[in-house]
This record gives sequence, C-alpha cells and structure tokens, in this order.
Amino acid sequence: VLDFHHPHQLKAGLEGLNMELPDQPETLEQILVDCRDTLKYGVRTGHPRFFNQLSSGLDVVGLAGEWLTSTANSNMFTYEVSPVFVLMEEVLLKKMQNIVGWLEDEGDGIFCPGGTISNLYSILLARYHFYPEVKTRGMGALPQLALFTSEHSHYSLKKSAAVLGLGTDNMVMVKCDERGKMISAELEAAIVSTKKKGLVPIYVNATAGTTVYGAFDPLNDIADICHRHSLWIAWSVTWNPHKMMGVPLQCSAILGLLKECNELGAEYLFQKDKHYDVSYDTGDKSIQCGRHVDAFKFWLMWKAKGSEGFEAQINKCLENAEYLYDQLQRRTDFKLVFDSKPEHCTVCFWYTPPSLRCLPAGPEKEAKLHQLAPWIKARMMEKGSAMVGYQPLGGKVNFFRCVLSNPATQQEDIDFLLDQIVQLGQYL
Amino acid sequence: VLDFHHPHQLKAGLEGLNMELPDQPETLEQILVDCRDTLKYGVRTGHPRFFNQLSSGLDVVGLAGEWLTSTANSNMFTYEVSPVFVLMEEVLLKKMQNIVGWLEDEGDGIFCPGGTISNLYSILLARYHFYPEVKTRGMGALPQLALFTSEHSHYSLKKSAAVLGLGTDNMVMVKCDERGKMISAELEAAIVSTKKKGLVPIYVNATAGTTVYGAFDPLNDIADICHRHSLWIAWSVTWNPHKMMGVPLQCSAILGLLKECNELGAEYLFQKDKHYDVSYDTGDKSIQCGRHVDAFKFWLMWKAKGSEGFEAQINKCLENAEYLYDQLQRRTDFKLVFDSKPEHCTVCFWYTPPSLRCLPAGPEKEAKLHQLAPWIKARMMEKGSAMVGYQPLGGKVNFFRCVLSNPATQQEDIDFLLDQIVQLGQYL
Repeated sequence: VLDFHHPHQLKAGLEGLNMELPDQPETLEQILVDCRDTLKYGVRTGHPRFFNQLSSGLDVVGLAGEWLTSTANSNMFTYEVSPVFVLMEEVLLKKMQNIVGWLEDEGDGIFCPGGTISNLYSILLARYHFYPEVKTRGMGALPQLALFTSEHSHYSLKKSAAVLGLGTDNMVMVKCDERGKMISAELEAAIVSTKKKGLVPIYVNATAGTTVYGAFDPLNDIADICHRHSLWIAWSVTWNPHKMMGVPLQCSAILGLLKECNELGAEYLFQKDKHYDVSYDTGDKSIQCGRHVDAFKFWLMWKAKGSEGFEAQINKCLENAEYLYDQLQRRTDFKLVFDSKPEHCTVCFWYTPPSLRCLPAGPEKEAKLHQLAPWIKARMMEKGSAMVGYQPLGGKVNFFRCVLSNPATQQEDIDFLLDQIVQLGQYL
Repeated sequence: VLDFHHPHQLKAGLEGLNMELPDQPETLEQILVDCRDTLKYGVRTGHPRFFNQLSSGLDVVGLAGEWLTSTANSNMFTYEVSPVFVLMEEVLLKKMQNIVGWLEDEGDGIFCPGGTISNLYSILLARYHFYPEVKTRGMGALPQLALFTSEHSHYSLKKSAAVLGLGTDNMVMVKCDERGKMISAELEAAIVSTKKKGLVPIYVNATAGTTVYGAFDPLNDIADICHRHSLWIAWSVTWNPHKMMGVPLQCSAILGLLKECNELGAEYLFQKDKHYDVSYDTGDKSIQCGRHVDAFKFWLMWKAKGSEGFEAQINKCLENAEYLYDQLQRRTDFKLVFDSKPEHCTVCFWYTPPSLRCLPAGPEKEAKLHQLAPWIKARMMEKGSAMVGYQPLGGKVNFFRCVLSNPATQQEDIDFLLDQIVQLGQYL
C-alpha cells in the first residue's frame, strides 16, 4: 500500500528524489526518474487494503475521463470555452436532482472542489434566502444568526461558519444517540433555547452517512422540525461522487438555487451580448472564477457503468462492511464501538491484545488501549501492508475506523487487516 | 480552434453525442466514441490562435504531471496519504516566497482551486489578523469593516466580500488612471473618507497585472499608504501558475500565514498522536477538507524547464504582446484602447470597418462599434478560426481584449487574428 519514509528522510533526498527546483532544465530521462520515484514513495489509494479514507479505489474509465479533461485543459466558467462540459454538468445535475426527488424546475447546482466547499455553499444559500441584503451590506446588517448540525457531523460545517463570518460558536452542535444519529428532540430544544437567547436560527444540516460512524440522521423528523420553525433544510443537498461512487478526486456537487446568491456579472467574462444562449455561462453561480472540469469523468463513468453499475459497486462496499462487522462480532479479541449492523461503509472497533485482556476495566486499561491503535497503524504503515484510520470520539479512546469504499476490496483483504492487527499487536 | 454548435444543437444529439445517462452500461466502443466526440466539440484552448483567456497553451510535461496526479488519485490533507506531494508543495511555496522576497520563516501558504479562492483567503487572513475573535464569534462581534481594491481589479474581490459576510458595498472600488493603475491619492482619500463614515478599513488589494489592461498598481506607493494607516497589504500574495507559467488548470497559490486562521483540528483526520511529524499534515490550513493535488504538475514543469525556461516562455508572451501593439499602432483601421506599450500580456483595441470610418464620432458610431466586436467574435467562432475576448469598460464601448499567454503563439498567428477581424468586418 505504501513505502513509508519520514518527512526528513524524503526531504534529505536519501531515496534519490531531489525535490529542489533548478534554474536549468533537467533531462527528460531525469524527469521520468522523478515521476517513477514520486509514484514509488506515494500511497496506493486504490489498493484493496487501503481502508484509510472514503475516497479510494481507481476506476479506469474515471481515470481516462480525468486524462481527457486534463488534455482539454479548459475552464467551466462559460459555454464558449467548455460547451460540451457545461452541458454534461447540466445533465448530471438534473439526474442527481431527480434522484433526490426534486422536480425539473426546482433545480440548479454546481460541481465544487470538494464536499466542504459544497457544504459552505449550503450555508451561503440559507443566509441569502433569509437575508439577501447580506450580499451587498454584509453580516453587519443582520441579526445574530444560529445554525445547527449534529455533533457527529463533518467539521466542514464549523469551518464554513468561521469562513462565512457566522462564527463557530453560532454553529450549535446537537447531541447524537449512541449510533451517531442526531436526536431530533435535542435539535428542537436547541432551537428553542437559542431563540430565547436572542439569536435567529436559520439553518439545520442533516447528514446521510456521518464521517466516522456512517450514521444517518432522522431526516424526516428533522425536516418536520425545520418546517415548524421555518428553517433551512432539504433546499440544498451536498453529494460527493468521489466517495462511494468512486469518481476520481475531486468530484462534489451542491444542488440548490445558486445564481442570485452568487452572481456578479463580470463584463469581461459574462457578456450578455454573446451570440449564443448565455444562460449556459454557468460560472457566475460559482464562488470561484476559473473552475476545474469535474463533470466529465463522472459523466463518462455513468455511461460506462450505467446506474446499475454504480448500484452494484456500492452494494459491494456495503456487503464488505457487513462482512467486517460479522467477523468482529465473532471474535473475542475485537470489540465494536457500537453493536449494531453498519448502515453505511464504515466500521469502528477496538482490538484488545492478550496483554490487556486480563486488565480490569479502568483508566490504566483505557490509557493503554488509547495508545494501541496509533502504534499498530504506525507499524502497518512501516510494513506498507495496509492503511486504516483511528481516532478518539467523545469520551471513547482511540478506535480503528475502517472505511470500505473500494469495490476492489475482497473478503480476504478484510481478513488480512484483522490478522495484521492481531499479528502486530499480540506481543505488545 | 473550435467546431461551434449552439447549446440546443449539441443537446439534441444531432451531432451524435448522446448526453443522457443510462441505467445499463454502454459498450467500451461507444465510450471511445463519446470521448472522441467530446474532444471534437470542445475548444482547443492550447491552440496558438486561442487568445480568449489567460489560461491557455498545453505544456506536455505539465500534462504528464496531471496524468500522474490523477493516477495517484490522492488528497492533500495529510502527509500519510500524500507524503511526496505534501513535500513538493512545501518546496514550491518556499521557492515562491523566496521570489516575492519573503524570509524563510515568514512563509506559509497553500495551493487553492483557483485565483478567486486565493484572493478570498487573503481577505480571511486580514480579517483574522485584526479580529481573531471572528472565527468563533462571527462578524457580529466586529465593527463595520471596509476593504479597498481598484476599479480595474478582478471581480473575485467583490465576490469574496459577499461570501465572507463583509458585503460588496464595503469593498471600496478605488479609481484608476487611464492605463488602469490604481491612483494612490484616490486610495488615501477613500481610506480617510471611509474612516469618517465610521467604518474600519482593514485591507487593500493591489494588483500586479489587471484582468483587462494588464496594469500594475503602484505597489510601493500603496504599501506606504497601508503602512501609514496600518492596513493589510503584502502580507499575503496570490500567484496563479496556471496563467503566465502555463501550468495546466488549476494551479493557484496563496502565500501567507494560514494555520491559526483556519485550523479546527478534526480528530478523525489530524490526529496529534501519529508516528510522524504532524506539522506536515497541512490540510487544516485549508478551508477545504479534501484538496486536489495541484502541486505536482507545477513541480514537474519546474524540473523540466528550470526557472530559466519559465522566464523564456513568459518573455515570449510579452514579446508577442508588444508585436501586436506595434502592428495596431501601424494600422489606421485599428485603434488602441490606451496608447502605451503593454506592460503585460493583454492588448485592448477597436477595429473600425470601412463602413464606419467616415461616420463622425458620436453616439451612432459608438453604438455601431459596440455591436461590432460581439458580431465579429461570433463569426470567428462559427468559422472556428480563432477566439478572442471582448468587453465594454467604464464608458468605453465593446473592444477586443487579446490575451497573449500561450508561448506556442507565433507572429503569424497574431497577423492572422488581425486579418481575420478585417476580413469578417470589412463588408459590414
């Protein structure tokens, strides 16, 4: 999976890769050696034993799509420079809107550089919906706003609150149940108490597949609460095809009505007197100017797989997650972080080595368990045999978080991961 | 340069490209046909007669770099998944800091999805520098802020003011001279009058090479004014290698101290108990989570060209701009928008066809000239022979804005462009 070296080792060029930038050109032979070394010391994120991140796998058609995109070297701002890509983006967004259940004319959207930026758009949209004057007059013209998301949601919500000038303190983290799902009664209580403090709630984020537990928030209950309090939800959707759909990085979409919120009409780019239908100059919906073409690789994969192909590939990953869950349940040396079938593609667990098994539960055992996951992961990386994430959460000490989002992963790879953990940890 | 079709023509699939997304997979043969058609109806942004955008050309080493990047399919957030790319980013940023004249330890920075996002970071940094509490408490805790940029600067400044909750009204557009350079006395007057209104000035953007005229603001004068009024300037720099340096899209960097401004320390990604030096987990400096690898192609091009190769390539473009300027000066049927040698790679001009030459100056002639540039551009696109931008500016009617940023462009291509304009416009 990798050939690990510490930063100082790679930087010293001991492994032959000289990173310094020369005044004079290098030879083509040297460039090829540089490329080979770059791949050698990189991480094979498409390897079936790379369980570290939600973006994994390597789809050859997606890769071909990305290669063609780079060759075209174009920009998504206007139809005149990207006629085909702009239309493909429209087709994809309409299809995605259709899948989330929107009507034809409700929709709009854009591909963004990653899910965090998509989530940032969702807050931008909510703020503009309630206070369109924010665009010209800024937050100074608005009351103190409050936003809500679950404590298990992705950190992009907090980051966006910081960036957009809303403040992380005003992103209220709503409590979750033991499986990581937002408790809807807690949401309603938080909305009420926030209003009492004089803040104006405008936005609730609900997550379908949280980052760590893969939990689904109770969408219908949350929508009902939002409806009662006239808050923003379900009017925008973030969808990351670069995760479970396996599209090469990056490919993320925000669905929602973006145009008025973001348009400025720069005259050097978005001339209104062009000879074609300028509603296809979609770049002014974006908060970027130049925008990388992320649609084509996705479009090409959809052509090559069909919806059914995506379905089969995602089901394969979910089956792998269930297989890992079953294995962990069967074994006494592993313990699940929460004992219910995975609803999504992540499985969280502890390994207890023989040396810790007889220790009574308590702070000493917890402290040792906490150090175990990073230690095992480090050894695994040094061996290069597999990669898997770990982390603490709330009061819980470090546990492994295994992501099963690579359809190339087989049951043997999952067995290998567990055996490897045992092999590395058993003599500790 | 292109094989133009209107949106409705391409969407109808008359040209053989069926955009719809199927349930069942298509054959590999059909996928190849789709790829061929995508390229056929796209725009050749690397063509020497593509004068439409600052990002043009097609560097083969850069393209190879992008292909390798896609194959690696990794993410810039942590050293553990992108060890080599993270180090290359550091080497590039240090080199760029060195070139802009910063000391070793002043620096930091990150590659961003485009220059607009880089500019957005610069405002984020200024706001955080003066009011670090904005991160947690939001703009509500701050006085009304004011920012300054020239009326010729890129629209990303205004867009960022909208996104960040500062408000476009609070981005003061400072007057420029006839060559598009910010008038520093106007800047100082604007700062003083804004203060009198009770706003707090924090930030001035200066541009080195404006979007349309390619003008350089008087950096030293502006820096002196900022120093007198304790405002933000020159503490961050946006640099877009995907423009004059010809790096494939996208490749933009913001130089500046980002870490404290943006970090949140998500525990599932940025664990502090990893076995390597976690200062190389640079992703928390970003406002994105996942981040595309934009550094490698740039690094590889620098290896293959050396600093001298970049210098030669940029000089070639500047010489082309001067050649165009010389041609335009010589010819009576063309008129420069401002009559001084180009300082950068854009040249702005009107063409006056024989039918308009005898018309007296006045509203009728202006109105006809205004329609001329879009009409000629449309015909040029339909022929597919060249692409060049146009736009109005201030009180000026539509003029051509020719960008010379492709080192593959030869003097014959520039002659061709002028001849083509004459050929299309002369019988109008």
